[in-house]
Amino acid sequence: MVALLFDLDGTLIDTVYAHVLAWQVAFEEAGLNINGWRIHRRIGMSGGLFTRAAVRELGHEIEPERVQQMKRRHGELVDQFLPRRCPLPGAVELLQTLREAKVTFGIATSGTRPEINRSLDVLGIGSDVVVVDRNEVARAKPEPDLFLACQQRLGVRAEECCVVGDAVWDLLAARRAGMMSVGLLSGGYGEEELYRAGALRVYRDAEEFRHALYEIGIRL
Amino acid sequence: MVALLFDLDGTLIDTVYAHVLAWQVAFEEAGLNINGWRIHRRIGMSGGLFTRAAVRELGHEIEPERVQQMKRRHGELVDQFLPRRCPLPGAVELLQTLREAKVTFGIATSGTRPEINRSLDVLGIGSDVVVVDRNEVARAKPEPDLFLACQQRLGVRAEECCVVGDAVWDLLAARRAGMMSVGLLSGGYGEEELYRAGALRVYRDAEEFRHALYEIGIRL
Repeated sequence: MVALLFDLDGTLIDTVYAHVLAWQVAFEEAGLNINGWRIHRRIGMSGGLFTRAAVRELGHEIEPERVQQMKRRHGELVDQFLPRRCPLPGAVELLQTLREAKVTFGIATSGTRPEINRSLDVLGIGSDVVVVDRNEVARAKPEPDLFLACQQRLGVRAEECCVVGDAVWDLLAARRAGMMSVGLLSGGYGEEELYRAGALRVYRDAEEFRHALYEIGIRL
Repeated sequence: MVALLFDLDGTLIDTVYAHVLAWQVAFEEAGLNINGWRIHRRIGMSGGLFTRAAVRELGHEIEPERVQQMKRRHGELVDQFLPRRCPLPGAVELLQTLREAKVTFGIATSGTRPEINRSLDVLGIGSDVVVVDRNEVARAKPEPDLFLACQQRLGVRAEECCVVGDAVWDLLAARRAGMMSVGLLSGGYGEEELYRAGALRVYRDAEEFRHALYEIGIRL
């Protein structure tokens, strides 16, 4: 394995539950009753894709303007609910370890700038790191576009990459991109869900993964 | 099966993600960084037990007054984050179906009054229904006390009861009480986690369970 491609929310930063509740309330304010657990299991898709999928489950159709409006409201609520962004355990140290060992890595997220800037800041991810966000590709996860764009910018081959993500959508997108993947429990999925989606290995969080890098062939 | 014993949050009412985030923020305000997913997997225990367990994982000890203070703050934040309580799909209809078919049922929750009153109201659970809350027993889930107290008040035997819950703690408590259990995914646990904890069957939510009551021997 030559390069690691990281998801952001739920993998490096502890924002999943704020995102879920913000969507739940944004939907409810729009008169749509979508349950927390269904939102949780959709998180990691792009906001637009996710909103349409969630609303479709209700048997509704929804206008693009309303999707945009809910996305805006979701962003406001996340900031209101969780003013501070906290790195997940071991996330900062893991990236530092990779830097010191000169292991190539990048970020590929369904989030968008400027919303993700504070997360990147607290993780110490500067302009020297390749970060591909939702706006840079045509289609978000579970399509492989984000990981393929990240891999191309890193200048490595797909088969040399390993995706690190907390959501089933990361792992499905990795397989479709021809990449290996590992799953982290820190986004609140169950272990078997991640294995079934194709994870080579599942770890608790970035901290546990940091001590197990050799298991996927990364020698420090 | 003669009686159904229901958990409340995540089983009948869509509050799990608000509880998780409220704990996450209450801990953070107290200077304790406890990740969302770890809180999620502890929810359903009593607040005090849960707080101590979570803090112990950090390697700290914590004074009882600080636990009380965080519990108060958690309650405030839940109300702030989620002003309305929404029943989970099929929950109201399921209870109505049981009433019409004269199937005995009760509620056994790690929550406390008056916090749970609004949930009971939106579910149409009046004073005719047996509701055992955290304050009525010595020990909360995963101890069997809540379910045993509920069973005794319903006047049935433990082996005639089936617990319906969304959390691993419900299912473990049920086994220790000598009761069957079914798991619901509506609290955000994965299917295998619930089966491994001893669920006889796992359903999506109350709505799916309502149409499958015959699978656990309840004839309408």
